[in-house]
Amino acid sequence: MPATSLCQDEACPPYSLMDDYSEGAHPQILEALLRTNSTQQVSYGNDEYSNEARHLIREKIDCADDEAEIFFVPSGTSANLISIASCLRPYEAVITLDSGHIACKEAGAIEATGHKLILVPPVDGKMTPANLQKAFQQNQFYPHMAKPRLLYISNASETGTVYTKRELSNLSAMCKQLKLLLLMDGARIGTALCSKKNDMTLRDIFDLTDIFWIGGTKAGALLGEAIVVKKELAEGFVFHLKQHGALLAKGRIIGVQFMELFRNDLFFTLATHANSMAEKISANFECLGYSLVADTATNQVFVTLPSTLVRRLEDRFRFYTWEHLDDGRMVIRIVTSWATDELQVDKFNAWVEQWTVVGK
Amino acid sequence: MPATSLCQDEACPPYSLMDDYSEGAHPQILEALLRTNSTQQVSYGNDEYSNEARHLIREKIDCADDEAEIFFVPSGTSANLISIASCLRPYEAVITLDSGHIACKEAGAIEATGHKLILVPPVDGKMTPANLQKAFQQNQFYPHMAKPRLLYISNASETGTVYTKRELSNLSAMCKQLKLLLLMDGARIGTALCSKKNDMTLRDIFDLTDIFWIGGTKAGALLGEAIVVKKELAEGFVFHLKQHGALLAKGRIIGVQFMELFRNDLFFTLATHANSMAEKISANFECLGYSLVADTATNQVFVTLPSTLVRRLEDRFRFYTWEHLDDGRMVIRIVTSWATDELQVDKFNAWVEQWTVVGK
Amino acid sequence: MPATSLCQDEACPPYSLMDDYSEGAHPQILEALLRTNSTQQVSYGNDEYSNEARHLIREKIDCADDEAEIFFVPSGTSANLISIASCLRPYEAVITLDSGHIACKEAGAIEATGHKLILVPPVDGKMTPANLQKAFQQNQFYPHMAKPRLLYISNASETGTVYTKRELSNLSAMCKQLKLLLLMDGARIGTALCSKKNDMTLRDIFDLTDIFWIGGTKAGALLGEAIVVKKELAEGFVFHLKQHGALLAKGRIIGVQFMELFRNDLFFTLATHANSMAEKISANFECLGYSLVADTATNQVFVTLPSTLVRRLEDRFRFYTWEHLDDGRMVIRIVTSWATDELQVDKFNAWVEQWTVVGK
Amino acid sequence: MPATSLCQDEACPPYSLMDDYSEGAHPQILEALLRTNSTQQVSYGNDEYSNEARHLIREKIDCADDEAEIFFVPSGTSANLISIASCLRPYEAVITLDSGHIACKEAGAIEATGHKLILVPPVDGKMTPANLQKAFQQNQFYPHMAKPRLLYISNASETGTVYTKRELSNLSAMCKQLKLLLLMDGARIGTALCSKKNDMTLRDIFDLTDIFWIGGTKAGALLGEAIVVKKELAEGFVFHLKQHGALLAKGRIIGVQFMELFRNDLFFTLATHANSMAEKISANFECLGYSLVADTATNQVFVTLPSTLVRRLEDRFRFYTWEHLDDGRMVIRIVTSWATDELQVDKFNAWVEQWTVVGK
Repeated sequence: MPATSLCQDEACPPYSLMDDYSEGAHPQILEALLRTNSTQQVSYGNDEYSNEARHLIREKIDCADDEAEIFFVPSGTSANLISIASCLRPYEAVITLDSGHIACKEAGAIEATGHKLILVPPVDGKMTPANLQKAFQQNQFYPHMAKPRLLYISNASETGTVYTKRELSNLSAMCKQLKLLLLMDGARIGTALCSKKNDMTLRDIFDLTDIFWIGGTKAGALLGEAIVVKKELAEGFVFHLKQHGALLAKGRIIGVQFMELFRNDLFFTLATHANSMAEKISANFECLGYSLVADTATNQVFVTLPSTLVRRLEDRFRFYTWEHLDDGRMVIRIVTSWATDELQVDKFNAWVEQWTVVGK
Repeated sequence: MPATSLCQDEACPPYSLMDDYSEGAHPQILEALLRTNSTQQVSYGNDEYSNEARHLIREKIDCADDEAEIFFVPSGTSANLISIASCLRPYEAVITLDSGHIACKEAGAIEATGHKLILVPPVDGKMTPANLQKAFQQNQFYPHMAKPRLLYISNASETGTVYTKRELSNLSAMCKQLKLLLLMDGARIGTALCSKKNDMTLRDIFDLTDIFWIGGTKAGALLGEAIVVKKELAEGFVFHLKQHGALLAKGRIIGVQFMELFRNDLFFTLATHANSMAEKISANFECLGYSLVADTATNQVFVTLPSTLVRRLEDRFRFYTWEHLDDGRMVIRIVTSWATDELQVDKFNAWVEQWTVVGK
Repeated sequence: MPATSLCQDEACPPYSLMDDYSEGAHPQILEALLRTNSTQQVSYGNDEYSNEARHLIREKIDCADDEAEIFFVPSGTSANLISIASCLRPYEAVITLDSGHIACKEAGAIEATGHKLILVPPVDGKMTPANLQKAFQQNQFYPHMAKPRLLYISNASETGTVYTKRELSNLSAMCKQLKLLLLMDGARIGTALCSKKNDMTLRDIFDLTDIFWIGGTKAGALLGEAIVVKKELAEGFVFHLKQHGALLAKGRIIGVQFMELFRNDLFFTLATHANSMAEKISANFECLGYSLVADTATNQVFVTLPSTLVRRLEDRFRFYTWEHLDDGRMVIRIVTSWATDELQVDKFNAWVEQWTVVGK
Repeated sequence: MPATSLCQDEACPPYSLMDDYSEGAHPQILEALLRTNSTQQVSYGNDEYSNEARHLIREKIDCADDEAEIFFVPSGTSANLISIASCLRPYEAVITLDSGHIACKEAGAIEATGHKLILVPPVDGKMTPANLQKAFQQNQFYPHMAKPRLLYISNASETGTVYTKRELSNLSAMCKQLKLLLLMDGARIGTALCSKKNDMTLRDIFDLTDIFWIGGTKAGALLGEAIVVKKELAEGFVFHLKQHGALLAKGRIIGVQFMELFRNDLFFTLATHANSMAEKISANFECLGYSLVADTATNQVFVTLPSTLVRRLEDRFRFYTWEHLDDGRMVIRIVTSWATDELQVDKFNAWVEQWTVVGK
């Protein structure tokens, strides 16, 4: 198959498999924004759409109104820093993987609220009870050490893996034993819940954590994340939103989007699409004999490739070079999303196959 | 004129003149979001729409690319706290009116970044050079007092008044003399610039301040404010955005909106509408002999009314009760916006007139 | 009486009545430091001297071991910022007099821990329940306003006045009604308790506040303040000490000093001396017809004098010019202390008298 | 030699070799406090003793008045947090060893000022240019990562080792290349400079760092550290002192102590004593065949011992158990100081020898 059959138009720009936020919003969401646009609503998150979104999310979690409060914020960094700032006293610290988003991708946002991070190495992208306990025990020299008080994890993890129910139960039990709160960053919770490796419901996550958030930005919304806070931790939470600039005057715009995502399960449909696109790419790599760096459980593929293949793919696709190996090979990260075009995935796979044959 | 002729349908909900963020976005903006939705864009504010928006804003300011940097953030509180946190060292303080938004409507957001506020009483809703100088001089007992380093003002002011060029020039000169930076909160800068009392251009504001921001939320956007920072103050600014959760992954969604607002002057057209609706309401009050508490220069009307009239109006309109006077009368605040329906304004005026006649 | 009889030696430097921290420590305290110097002690505040000091303070308060915890810190600013940081959540604000030490003499130390100050004008240097309630009510627009949560007062006040038991009881009751904690800055609590205007015991203060501190620096120690915290607020307090650099490795040095101050009532003896020196100066002024700006209840005298008298006094004494009045007169502040030399006080009074006679 | 010959009095408490702050101050320092006690001095660090101390320190550094400013603070944590808070902008991070004092013994004090720590593993207790560079390069994904801006090191290190001139020069050069400031924690700089392994002068340290501090607390003072700041970094420094509660009203008490320490080289004499006591203990261990965990370069000895020996020593001496090895042996830390009694050191060595013979 000649290269030209894959891209007739030499001038077409590379297709991005870089991240899951390269496009705008799912059309249904934009339609909802249009449909609701002219009604007059109460401001700052108390509009009827935000309330309906809260209702639909609670329904999906299967939790009563008085079990949880739900707050909408514009970004994942907001969700993390506000959750942590609200739950901790000034001298309390967070335990996180050293690869955690708050540890290495948020410009020190948590420390900027005054809290120390205690770093733990990941196992398959995840925290283990043993590593958690060890970090806790190494930080007991009070008052010379900040007091560990909260465990932060992400599901899906930074490398796209997911927690099983057993794993999360064990972590949760260890947290209770150590008197730690458990916060789950759910920037990609949709793809986690729709993963073939997943055996948890939203209710399981609600039960096993103290606070978690549902990512909208990477799941088909223009922006917005929904923080689900156990009732007993929710006091004063809204002040933190305001204080950190996360309480939007037109709160409706996040409310409408979550209302749409959680009506008729659009949220899960979109995540399933993202996962299946990743699976297709991942299967092709494996079939051609390339080794994956992490299991492809959600919408991220980490694969080791020869640099010549990487260079050729870069002409037609955008993706992230994760690591340069000593033997000259490279680890790349492919991210799919609700918006990923299956035709482009097929082309990508075809190119990989073609250049693999050529390379041999 | 009987009441029924004004609202045939007894069940119609009160029309809100409560604030300028009760509706969604201007339809043209939503169309632009739809139109640009499916293109793939670079994330975190480096997309082509954000860049085009920056270009258009610079054009409107009439400033060169290397004179200013422009950053988009989701909310006014973000804009204020990030601007201040970026410009000040930890021991430096902000001088503000005691009625300033950062002083009484942002839940201590500025103090949460570590900075003291020094409060000054307003004159006609505004800061005067004399009051500024006095506050500065009262805060010179170093190092026991935090060092004043930045003046924060709003234009339009909290009571809807505007700064004249002479007033801002005098403030700016006093700031230079006292080595203070000058930050202008422009949540309602559109209505200020379109006020009949205004004699400044955006270039004047750029020249006379060190940093100012252009409010989108109250000007017809779903959300978003554009911070204009003099080049020499811009270093590291983007880190603050990230650290405070204000750097959106899909930065395009604010970029597109400002692109649309500043193409063909939609921003100014909408502000002019808001102002003229307020003027109509204000003129009617004056014509009927009610006294205004502040000059109606922009889209806010502050008027003193008998409580019986207020009660009757409340059945059909929503607005904010600002103050209860000792003589039983009340000060109310009416806010109009780009979305205010002129038909409703006419009805409002008719009701005021009718009940005034009845009341006499 | 010729000038020379007052100061034989023309070259003698002016005697300072500027503040109550111009000298070192009371000799008995230095002797205690010498006496205990070579014993080996546990570090960071758990030494036997600190524990003995805690015991003696609790005895003087007449409170049980499990009613209060006591922490020693090096400075008043430390005491205030740590107390407030430990008691409040990030969005909670402090109500204080606008003349409060934290409001205007601590370089924004409270704001640097993230907390807003709400300012109230003083009445006779003090907070009143009515003014407190008014400030509270003006700060209820949640979540746009920071939530008032703690009242900060000083006793003696910044102008040297003292709270009566009735006044403090009323403030305390208002705090309970408004769910505010009450913190008393006791930098000069010794002179307050020894004032002729005082009708409170340490137990009264303990009962009517949630947290208060006993100033050592201004009471004859080299440095150090003792924070008395109700048991239920003490959890985690020591972490704050450490985090803010206030937990001294050789905690003994503050412990020894408070042990000495509270053994045999040295603390009260020294405060009584300071007060009586101020009273002597104050009485002389009144006798000569000068008007006091504030009642002389403790060790500070605020008096209005002709500028010629002030100029003459400045040749021989150091004191603080508080205010320049429009009529050319000046308000000066005289501060006495445990170390004030009565001979110098007599000279001061003689000079005032002499130059008053001359001036007439 | 029977045990009884080592301690006639069975009841004598264990002698502490736990740390270098178990005693008060060197007698000469107490005498200086007594001698200067009654003079009246200007407050807040501008007294003549503090100025004389600054003069003597500058002389010892051999630096001109306008090259450096010197500030006195009560504790090492104060010194570190104030230095870092003053030098960095909010988004800037500190690179430190993971064993650094700020990383694991200061209760999150640096994070409490808003700054992220980037952790690097030590080599012989020290930072290497290669490890520094690697950490720097791994933190370049701007603006998603906080910007590394300052390297924090300690000399002597946490394990008692010292930097050679070559090592510090290389680190300093790497810092300049990476545009990092270099801060040296000198809690034990006295013992470092008096180490047999040392080949640096205070001037070398001044030249090769941007800011460093001279520890008084562990060097024979009651409390106090002297921060030496290059002139160009000193602007506004004093505000930070005030804001963090570290500007003592009676600044004289730290001034007097440093004046005494740096007159006639008492500071160095005391450090030399501490080092030689450690050397004696260390040599005895080595002579008896025990292995040291770190080279004994200053006043700390880290040695691996059988647990039976440790248990026996604990009856008569206090020291810190550093680590439990898998083979049942233990690493203990012995710390000597200016106050360590040579007689006790001899007893300690005798006991070690006796129980070693018995144990064989």
